[in-house]
Amino acid sequence: MDGQPIDPSGTAEAGELSTLAQRLQALCLAARWTVVSAESCTGGMIVDTLTDVPGSSGYLLGGIVAYSDALKEGQLGVPGEVITAHGAVSAQVARAMALGALERLGATFAVSVTGIAGPDGGSEAKPVGLTYVGVAGPGGVEVRRFAWVGDRAANKRASTRAALELLIGAVETAAATAAAAR
Amino acid sequence: MDGQPIDPSGTAEAGELSTLAQRLQALCLAARWTVVSAESCTGGMIVDTLTDVPGSSGYLLGGIVAYSDALKEGQLGVPGEVITAHGAVSAQVARAMALGALERLGATFAVSVTGIAGPDGGSEAKPVGLTYVGVAGPGGVEVRRFAWVGDRAANKRASTRAALELLIGAVETAAATAAAAR
Repeated sequence: MDGQPIDPSGTAEAGELSTLAQRLQALCLAARWTVVSAESCTGGMIVDTLTDVPGSSGYLLGGIVAYSDALKEGQLGVPGEVITAHGAVSAQVARAMALGALERLGATFAVSVTGIAGPDGGSEAKPVGLTYVGVAGPGGVEVRRFAWVGDRAANKRASTRAALELLIGAVETAAATAAAAR
Repeated sequence: MDGQPIDPSGTAEAGELSTLAQRLQALCLAARWTVVSAESCTGGMIVDTLTDVPGSSGYLLGGIVAYSDALKEGQLGVPGEVITAHGAVSAQVARAMALGALERLGATFAVSVTGIAGPDGGSEAKPVGLTYVGVAGPGGVEVRRFAWVGDRAANKRASTRAALELLIGAVETAAATAAAAR
């Protein structure tokens, strides 16, 4: 999936992020589900956004910001071979980060992000803005690819929004599945 | 140390935080030192602020947001007895978080924050706004107490600012010590 239009000022997105955080919190508190994050290029913006909402400690256990490859391996259990073979910014690493966070931190859902926020770090094969978002939960693991076209700040916000949207989708699917099974 | 005046709008503080992040980055890149964070009530705002600066991956390894006590124990190695004896918001836990992050994540410096951002979670003994900030590094470990008087957002920003200031102070002291030894 390619990038969507980005609000350059970030003002509208800040409000939108807050709305998404409140929606996620209401869903998780109702189902008594917990959430953790495993972030690279978003650098903590996901947990920061979620903890802006009072009462978030009721479902958010925390998260790991694994900016260096050493932390991706040591704290999230991403195999070094996977990083070497596919690069830190890859679907495989996003998948391993989400699964590692889920297992090591013991939550119902884990969301992960790895990407190149810019302005440096891009290449022809992996340009600035390339981002992979992963979600792991009771329904399995899902990874999506995005290609943002903004600056560093806009790319961080866009990735945070995409991560929250993917996570909310997974939580809603799980809630519908649980309701159908009752 | 008690709380200092807080900018209610947060606008001036956002600029100030960015300036502090740039200063920390310049100091650490010059000395080739690395930094990690261990955050509770700031919820990732410290790493988010630091990663807003391009090139931050040159010194910032990442961080752990340990919102739940289970993550404080499991990911940062804070002894459960210390949490039980002193509470999660205490100088002892801030100290253990900083030392745990330093050891487990393998950086030169670690900064930690534990506090009550509000609006809930306060008590007579530990009111909303009570916050402990810790820094561990080559010079040892230091913890300071703050008592903020703002709302949740203002308290998060004030704690982030206090953490960055304490961290920069420790880095500057270490740099001066290293220079004197040459």
